[in-house]
Amino acid sequence: MASMNTKVCIVGAGVAGLKTAHTLLNDPKSKFKAEDVLILEAQDRIGGRVLTDKTSSKLGYSYDIGGAWFHDCLSNTVLQESIDSGLFVVQKDGYFDDKDITVYDKDFNNQPVPVTDLKLNRVKEELEKFIEVYYHEDLSRKDMSLLEITDVYIKRYGDRLTSEQKKYLKKMIRYFELWDGFSADKISARYSLNDHEGRNLYNLKGYSFLLDELLRKIPASQIRTNTKVNTIVRNNKHNETKLRVETDKGIVYCDYLVVTVPLSILKLPSSHPYGISWEPSLPASITEALDATCFAALGKVIFEFNDVWWDKDVEQILHLPEETGSVELSAVLNQPPQKLIYPYLLVNYEALHKKDNKKTAQGGSFVLLTQAPLTQYLEENPDKAWDYFKASFKSFVQPGRTISEPINVITTKWTTNPYIRGSYSGVEVNGSYEDMVAQLSGEIEGLGLGYSTVRFAGEHATAVGSGCIHGAYTSGEREAAWILNHYNSLKWTL
Amino acid sequence: MASMNTKVCIVGAGVAGLKTAHTLLNDPKSKFKAEDVLILEAQDRIGGRVLTDKTSSKLGYSYDIGGAWFHDCLSNTVLQESIDSGLFVVQKDGYFDDKDITVYDKDFNNQPVPVTDLKLNRVKEELEKFIEVYYHEDLSRKDMSLLEITDVYIKRYGDRLTSEQKKYLKKMIRYFELWDGFSADKISARYSLNDHEGRNLYNLKGYSFLLDELLRKIPASQIRTNTKVNTIVRNNKHNETKLRVETDKGIVYCDYLVVTVPLSILKLPSSHPYGISWEPSLPASITEALDATCFAALGKVIFEFNDVWWDKDVEQILHLPEETGSVELSAVLNQPPQKLIYPYLLVNYEALHKKDNKKTAQGGSFVLLTQAPLTQYLEENPDKAWDYFKASFKSFVQPGRTISEPINVITTKWTTNPYIRGSYSGVEVNGSYEDMVAQLSGEIEGLGLGYSTVRFAGEHATAVGSGCIHGAYTSGEREAAWILNHYNSLKWTL
Repeated sequence: MASMNTKVCIVGAGVAGLKTAHTLLNDPKSKFKAEDVLILEAQDRIGGRVLTDKTSSKLGYSYDIGGAWFHDCLSNTVLQESIDSGLFVVQKDGYFDDKDITVYDKDFNNQPVPVTDLKLNRVKEELEKFIEVYYHEDLSRKDMSLLEITDVYIKRYGDRLTSEQKKYLKKMIRYFELWDGFSADKISARYSLNDHEGRNLYNLKGYSFLLDELLRKIPASQIRTNTKVNTIVRNNKHNETKLRVETDKGIVYCDYLVVTVPLSILKLPSSHPYGISWEPSLPASITEALDATCFAALGKVIFEFNDVWWDKDVEQILHLPEETGSVELSAVLNQPPQKLIYPYLLVNYEALHKKDNKKTAQGGSFVLLTQAPLTQYLEENPDKAWDYFKASFKSFVQPGRTISEPINVITTKWTTNPYIRGSYSGVEVNGSYEDMVAQLSGEIEGLGLGYSTVRFAGEHATAVGSGCIHGAYTSGEREAAWILNHYNSLKWTL
Repeated sequence: MASMNTKVCIVGAGVAGLKTAHTLLNDPKSKFKAEDVLILEAQDRIGGRVLTDKTSSKLGYSYDIGGAWFHDCLSNTVLQESIDSGLFVVQKDGYFDDKDITVYDKDFNNQPVPVTDLKLNRVKEELEKFIEVYYHEDLSRKDMSLLEITDVYIKRYGDRLTSEQKKYLKKMIRYFELWDGFSADKISARYSLNDHEGRNLYNLKGYSFLLDELLRKIPASQIRTNTKVNTIVRNNKHNETKLRVETDKGIVYCDYLVVTVPLSILKLPSSHPYGISWEPSLPASITEALDATCFAALGKVIFEFNDVWWDKDVEQILHLPEETGSVELSAVLNQPPQKLIYPYLLVNYEALHKKDNKKTAQGGSFVLLTQAPLTQYLEENPDKAWDYFKASFKSFVQPGRTISEPINVITTKWTTNPYIRGSYSGVEVNGSYEDMVAQLSGEIEGLGLGYSTVRFAGEHATAVGSGCIHGAYTSGEREAAWILNHYNSLKWTL
């Protein structure tokens, strides 16, 4: 591939890129042939942050190492289309693991935190409403961290809270870290409230089904793996009618370009070995919008055991952190924290997969969701995971049972993967998100690259399902539709 | 009082009217003297729908027969002012009775409905989000009843719900009837979602404290009870500079008039014996806006017993209705329903008042909240209440205990009181609420009576705290502020 021509070049073979290609090649209105669409993928595998690991388990499980749930079930296009096509049957292939979360804390000696009796959910709901109203009633209010606004609420309404409510609310609210993927001292209060459009459905089938379905109608020849894009020349002086994409395998000339690389890659300076060099540079309106966002690091640590010493029926456990004092939660970790200063969410595969028959051995497993900066540390030092977590497991070991050593520890590698560098997009204190979406989604005239043949897709380039697989999917669909419309409306052949 | 003059005449001595007078007489900017403000009250008592009954109990309790909670605690002005002035101490005078509601149903043989295991709250939350999105994504969608939209949701997403979830969701959603005050076949889906600004605080002190506080600074001579307003002449031909208010005790001439009668009275035709005749008639913009609303009938039935045969610590019980088949829920009842076709909410005074020492006798009590049309039937036939409800008490009688006969039954009388005629404002299917608020609140130029000296206040005349005591209170404050501003800006003395 020293040099080649195509009509549409797509950078990135994750869900966004694959869905773009799939739509371009299969839409009834499309005039594109297979050779008109080319996907360039820097890694040696297809799928991006969708990755179903079918081989690492010693228990015969397959694990979604990337996205694992259908979020926003009321409006999740991927779920609805998969149901409609018969590919996914909710009652068989899915599991709503949304029973009230069981909460544990070191304070409560092997018993769950009495969330109901302490009315912690009511207080947490009130805090969330407080945050909403706080920024809604005065848009000019300064942003602060989720931890800080919790203190503002407690100070303002302290006379209406018990001392236990104050203490555990500050821990409970850190549950958000396991959505946002980073510690609460950095979570933007202004952006902290998630508006979920419906329930969350755990995908028992494994998200590889979605990749397989998309790949079924994309010729393998049109996906080039191990092909990293180094430079994008959007105002191509060599060939006025073509965009120029320089890879380490050669040059691609194209009429349309859809950039679906992770936000983390877009945020890198062009001089960075894994960054993209743009010629001319991206306008400041885009780079500033990118700078206002962050790239989170939700991680997973899967423990497999020869026996199930925890409640096999519990769906999710939130383990609260110890009090942290003056520790800077977001500081890079060079050694494991001395105590459990980050909350984690345990998802119990035994409960979720009980209607699934893939498991071949005795024993059982669960996964812990972690946040930055702990994720980075554990992904770099997976051998330290067991020692760090095991003391906290005393909170919920079943009475009379002994915590056994794991037979297998599997951690994600998203932060150590130089092509991914984390999990998904987010907003830190004083950041913003709408700007990036407006700049990249191409939906608002005059913003971003304007009415340009250089397009963006991915979980970060959409306000619908941002951070999610269905967000990446619909953004790919959106860009394909734009290109089809643009191409079909041309009066001449390019 | 054959004929008298005053500057401000206020119709109605409920919270809205009292707060209007209180502000007019005590605001530092006010130039009004006591004789400038006159309140006309049709009933023989002051307080309107605030009524703390200190005498009916055989157990020494006092009961708030009207409003009993502080709603929207984050923004409830009455609560905040009462705390700030030292009149109300939350930890002593209030109780957050908001532990997760225990749900009972005849199906579950003396055990609570396993709401957690059935994940009914997740499904209920999803339905609520569905309703929100349904009307948000297409504003032109037709309204329907809460029951109907529940069926739409179940039909649309039935493959994702268990048969038990479908069955009990249809019952659980009727919990809204105990907020809205009427049956779910009439509740407007479009208006069904309540946005609570914070928790709900039960008022142990009794709301009479608020009346007492307001009355402390309103001379008793300026409140005329048993004085019903029959006619309001707003374009007074007899005396061009005065408004003319005709009562059954004589005529009042005034410069400003604040009408705080319940919405139910405003909705009556002028020919009705309890209605108000307007000369000239109210503009169609107002009467049509009033017609688009309804007046609900939340009722209370208090049972007192010599012994506590239920869980003394439970705070609230939602008792689900039996399946109703083709029964028209909103039809007027001429006899008690043959089975429990209306859900009720039990509020357990034993749990709420446990830190209160007012109770003098053994025994205990609880209150059941009811909805139209059941409220009307029970208020007219309080002797039928026990027989109607008692079978359902089998669902939650404590094991080994016997349901005893009540020693006292106290029902509200709001629907049978011709000056009140129900509980508070609401919206039925195809109705609307914003119009009325816009027409009556006087906040939008060109609507309602415009820049008129005839003003409206009350729980129905505000978008903030509508239906609540703090809504009535702030609307009274608003109208007083308008009058003070108008009066002080006049260049001449009226």
